[in-house]
Amino acid sequence: MSSAPTAGTRPDEVRRHNRAALLRRLHVDGPSTRAELATELGLNRSTIKALVDELTALGLVTEQVPTHRQGAGRPSLLVLPQARAVPVLAVDVGVEQVTVAAVGIGGTVLGGRHWAQARGGADPETVLAKVATACRELATELGRPPVRIGVSVPGVVRRADGLVHEAPNLHWTGVPFGRMLSTELRLPVQVGNDADLGGLAEHIRGAARDAADIVFLSAEVGVGGGVIVGGAPLRGTGGYVGELGHMVVNPQGRSCYCGCRGCWETEIGEDALCRALNLTGGAARAEIVAELASLALRPEDARHRLEGFAGWLALGLTNVVNVVAPELVVLGGLLAVLPPVVVTEVAETVSRRSLVGRAAGRLRMVTSTLGADAALVGAAELAFEQVFANG
Amino acid sequence: MSSAPTAGTRPDEVRRHNRAALLRRLHVDGPSTRAELATELGLNRSTIKALVDELTALGLVTEQVPTHRQGAGRPSLLVLPQARAVPVLAVDVGVEQVTVAAVGIGGTVLGGRHWAQARGGADPETVLAKVATACRELATELGRPPVRIGVSVPGVVRRADGLVHEAPNLHWTGVPFGRMLSTELRLPVQVGNDADLGGLAEHIRGAARDAADIVFLSAEVGVGGGVIVGGAPLRGTGGYVGELGHMVVNPQGRSCYCGCRGCWETEIGEDALCRALNLTGGAARAEIVAELASLALRPEDARHRLEGFAGWLALGLTNVVNVVAPELVVLGGLLAVLPPVVVTEVAETVSRRSLVGRAAGRLRMVTSTLGADAALVGAAELAFEQVFANG
Repeated sequence: MSSAPTAGTRPDEVRRHNRAALLRRLHVDGPSTRAELATELGLNRSTIKALVDELTALGLVTEQVPTHRQGAGRPSLLVLPQARAVPVLAVDVGVEQVTVAAVGIGGTVLGGRHWAQARGGADPETVLAKVATACRELATELGRPPVRIGVSVPGVVRRADGLVHEAPNLHWTGVPFGRMLSTELRLPVQVGNDADLGGLAEHIRGAARDAADIVFLSAEVGVGGGVIVGGAPLRGTGGYVGELGHMVVNPQGRSCYCGCRGCWETEIGEDALCRALNLTGGAARAEIVAELASLALRPEDARHRLEGFAGWLALGLTNVVNVVAPELVVLGGLLAVLPPVVVTEVAETVSRRSLVGRAAGRLRMVTSTLGADAALVGAAELAFEQVFANG
Repeated sequence: MSSAPTAGTRPDEVRRHNRAALLRRLHVDGPSTRAELATELGLNRSTIKALVDELTALGLVTEQVPTHRQGAGRPSLLVLPQARAVPVLAVDVGVEQVTVAAVGIGGTVLGGRHWAQARGGADPETVLAKVATACRELATELGRPPVRIGVSVPGVVRRADGLVHEAPNLHWTGVPFGRMLSTELRLPVQVGNDADLGGLAEHIRGAARDAADIVFLSAEVGVGGGVIVGGAPLRGTGGYVGELGHMVVNPQGRSCYCGCRGCWETEIGEDALCRALNLTGGAARAEIVAELASLALRPEDARHRLEGFAGWLALGLTNVVNVVAPELVVLGGLLAVLPPVVVTEVAETVSRRSLVGRAAGRLRMVTSTLGADAALVGAAELAFEQVFANG
């Protein structure tokens, strides 16, 4: 039973909770034997059998005799999630590209569409129309209606209704994108912040699977972060999530569009990286990535050229570690392409400087394994969260 | 059922969970009728009756006919927690004072001891001996053994075993205070950070009872913070909690003992307040409080004298709001004595400047209602958390 007991539990809720827990376990960890499920969920085998029978009748799982027998005695049946049973649609509205995918239980990608768009050329109606068309096409290909849609947007999003308050790099303000898409497709839609969803994705299917307390930090044009605490995404009032990129780290620094001066984004975003690399602002992403890849081969040079950039990365991370005490930091976006020597040194600096880091032991810092797919995978998981919660 | 379903629930856990939920409800909200408990816990009346009967048999609650009848029909019996049934001891190891109290269910203080100590004169063995003596005396007065001890320390504390990693203002480093006290008194001991416990206390019994997402920020010699998210304390890896005071806000600022430059503590701690008020560093607390009280009567003067101080308070809070998105900020310690005009202006600045604040609506900012007792009350709640969890 998790967290503080503030409400009672009725017997009918227990069955629903256990069914969701079992389905979520299969979704995250893949096919498992009944015996494994019993152990992992802490339930007895007759309860597992009843739950599996129920899910089989609903077409959500199938069972088969495992090919590899373990130990003596009757083999425990293998329970497999049915990828196509309750497909969701995931939408990643990026600054330069939009991606839509159909995703099944277990994270299986069942189909997709993507297209480029010019920076600043993503007016909401155009994006909506194209996304809706892609969703309809994918639904037709699936041969069955998707049950929910999850959307990632690079901005401040109200969870309750999918209102995009500010998405500066899309030039969106007060766009009710969740409601618009839901009305258009007559499906429940959840909208989340891209970095928050990236963190969720890395936690469930990426570099942070083994960690319960993580910070995902991603830098592209903007800088965003997702925080997972005790295995669950950190969400504050109204479901709003952290805008780590707008933590002020340098009050004597550059002006930020948000109205503050010296936001972390101004020191570790794409522009700052271009300055450090002596590239012109607005350089193509491929150019930045190539320069970083070349620097990775010259560690001393990398250390020297990125010294200032790394200093601001370490300073902000020291603050983040002192505030939310993660065990693992996952670097995403352009930060995932930083030369390894820089990543290692930043992790050492943060471990040494933060009070919490000194107490908790050396901070682990790794790069994203999902790369550019992180937000899309997170959008699918956002939709699945609701599928399981609504049993 | 709260948060992400990651484990199953066995029927025997449900009864224990519901018993703890009922007891916790009485502990937090005081005497309630069976009907109120049924509504608030979402359980039917026969389940409530069974639970209350069980708790009555254990001597934890009693029932009585309510004096004020509401509506027609048979009156619902009033369930009262028995304050003396499972008393805990709460210990607040402050920089200049130590307080020990015996506390019963419902937060009733059943007895107490406190004594002053010189700054820097609190060596662990001396504190331990005095605390142990006070605990033994209080146990004798209670006439029954206390069941658990909760301890507040102004430092970085490892929850698992009560190791105090660093408590700079006590000059403690690596002191296993929890284990020492537990060995001495043969009772389970939990140790927490003072600001974290202050936040817990304000949430359960103080200024933040009506809010689920709060930040408690307290400044004395040091600056600390406690964060409550979705009604539960934010705890990162190893149970470590945020050291908000060591968020770097001014990289060109003063050196901090932690090794960084420009920590928030250096800009809004006691020394910074003395500088703003033109008091000599190390001025008596009473002197600072008197000066702030006098300034409160001259709002224009207060605004002017505290402009710089308020600016750093607002900058750090903007960061905190952007990271954890609280709905309410509770100011404790010396910050609770700031002139109201300053508090109002800081709240307005933070609401305007933080991206999350702009989206979530005006940030509420209030001063602590528990004052100097916040950490002590929180220490008692830390102990009770375990009492209920181990039901």
